[in-house]
Amino acid sequence: MRRRSLVGGGLAIAVLKAAPALAQRDPLPSWNEGAAKRSILDFVARTTTPGGRDWVPLPQRIATFDNDGTLWCEQPMYVQTVLALDRLKATVDKHPEWRTTEPFRSLLADDRDQLGALGEKAMLEVMAASYSGLTTEEFSQAVLDWLAVARHPRFNRLYTELVYQPMLELLALLHMHHFKTFIVSGGGIEFMRPWTERVYGIPPEQVVGSSGVTRYVMRAPDKPVLVKEPKVEFIDNFVGKPEGINYFIGRRPVLAFGNSDGDQQMLEWTAAGGGARFMGLVHHTDAVREYAYDRNSPVGRLDKAWDEAVRRDWLMVDMKKDWKVIFPFELN
Amino acid sequence: MRRRSLVGGGLAIAVLKAAPALAQRDPLPSWNEGAAKRSILDFVARTTTPGGRDWVPLPQRIATFDNDGTLWCEQPMYVQTVLALDRLKATVDKHPEWRTTEPFRSLLADDRDQLGALGEKAMLEVMAASYSGLTTEEFSQAVLDWLAVARHPRFNRLYTELVYQPMLELLALLHMHHFKTFIVSGGGIEFMRPWTERVYGIPPEQVVGSSGVTRYVMRAPDKPVLVKEPKVEFIDNFVGKPEGINYFIGRRPVLAFGNSDGDQQMLEWTAAGGGARFMGLVHHTDAVREYAYDRNSPVGRLDKAWDEAVRRDWLMVDMKKDWKVIFPFELN
Repeated sequence: MRRRSLVGGGLAIAVLKAAPALAQRDPLPSWNEGAAKRSILDFVARTTTPGGRDWVPLPQRIATFDNDGTLWCEQPMYVQTVLALDRLKATVDKHPEWRTTEPFRSLLADDRDQLGALGEKAMLEVMAASYSGLTTEEFSQAVLDWLAVARHPRFNRLYTELVYQPMLELLALLHMHHFKTFIVSGGGIEFMRPWTERVYGIPPEQVVGSSGVTRYVMRAPDKPVLVKEPKVEFIDNFVGKPEGINYFIGRRPVLAFGNSDGDQQMLEWTAAGGGARFMGLVHHTDAVREYAYDRNSPVGRLDKAWDEAVRRDWLMVDMKKDWKVIFPFELN
Repeated sequence: MRRRSLVGGGLAIAVLKAAPALAQRDPLPSWNEGAAKRSILDFVARTTTPGGRDWVPLPQRIATFDNDGTLWCEQPMYVQTVLALDRLKATVDKHPEWRTTEPFRSLLADDRDQLGALGEKAMLEVMAASYSGLTTEEFSQAVLDWLAVARHPRFNRLYTELVYQPMLELLALLHMHHFKTFIVSGGGIEFMRPWTERVYGIPPEQVVGSSGVTRYVMRAPDKPVLVKEPKVEFIDNFVGKPEGINYFIGRRPVLAFGNSDGDQQMLEWTAAGGGARFMGLVHHTDAVREYAYDRNSPVGRLDKAWDEAVRRDWLMVDMKKDWKVIFPFELN
């Protein structure tokens, strides 16, 4: 009896040891200890603990993330701008008018200042013009083909390698707790959907973004295609973000993360819901490991939203201070 | 030993009896035995059996359903038309111009022919006009308040009771096999979202539909609202259905169900994908238990899509013959 009791006791101790070890395994290992990490872990714990005051039912666990500058690197210019530029150069012979029309002329002349200053709207118009006539499937393949080879000028890495490891960990933490995560980006919806599932674990139907007009055409009997028209349909930025969230998702997020003035209204909209809410902004403060930019940057300007974050006590992630690791390849 | 062996044998038999009973429990009890039911069960079995030739990976299990006439009753007029009509009458004093402008004039005069003939586009325009100025939350509440009391003129039931029991069973069967079901309806997206989760088990973010313009407005400091504008943004019917599927979902369905010409392009688009596909149309053939209408009906006309279904061997559900039960309340 004594022996069996000892064995039983030993097993019980082993289980007790294993349980806290599992519970305490850090879900955000690339975040430094500090207020930012604590506030995220606290929010997830509060909203997912059954019986707690801030518990959020599963269907309402909606979290929205901006993409450019929030989940991946947007400097020195939007990835999509680089794609559009490569496309312009490759097809300009069929469009001689581009050589004399702005913004095409400056883009083709590789005017870096002009390129950096190109807003999301102009970028979307260039995208729409340069990919007009392709079917949605051809465009999707063109994006994947390009992303498989194009490299970032400073890091010499594929763009899909330049995603933020701490944000991947945050997405994984939310998925583990049954949050449905959405991308809500000023970037093109069809530019993102081909790769967000593989890179972020976010399926195409949970990607909201700017979009162009498509037209349903029968190319052959029983062979319908959707052809891209040279027209921007919807710009998912600034007030477009809450409008897009309402339009595509139809539910208010309980957590929203962005990094620039274009995200302010998404965070305001999130904050205005009842119950526990989390609003966060990534502040790019690390010129050594990534980039440092905010109030005066043409790409990803963080000015009004910064003031708003201070006033309303939204989380400002200080990339340099709060992130132990920036990119996944640093872990290798 | 003999006794224990007998006991063991008894338990094994009990389990063996239970297993086939569970396996054979009919997931579509409101469908009569026949080709329609067989083809559905066969498709679900083929696409969800691991290792099978037609197996569909979980993320690609996308199924789209029209709403009016496919999931719930659309006769003698679209439910949303009745709602719009009630709203027109309640607010006409603030809009004297409606008394002399079409289609408002005929609607207010209760011209039943005119009402029945009102297409989805006109209905959406009437909806947009009559609910303009409400916030999205006020509109959502107005829909729920109305659905809680409005009754169908023939069945004297709440409209949400007039959903098709066989289709609820099909949705449940698909959910059990990890299909993600979407509504893709010509009806208003904001009209459907407040109740689809409760009635169909389809959450708001999986509802695609026609939509109006909203505008982001700060009603008070930190109190943003989305206000409905009197303008239709997107009509999700005919070619709008594949365009809407591409826009909102970004993946091609493997199964699509409709009931009218407005669904033809959705079914074409679904059929044009590679691998196993299922295209179905509900044919309203039961004037006694529901309604009988097809080629000449102004609401839910089934004419060109019928010819197409015959030519391409899509399933035509014969409501009278294939459905044992039409509405859930018949089961009580």
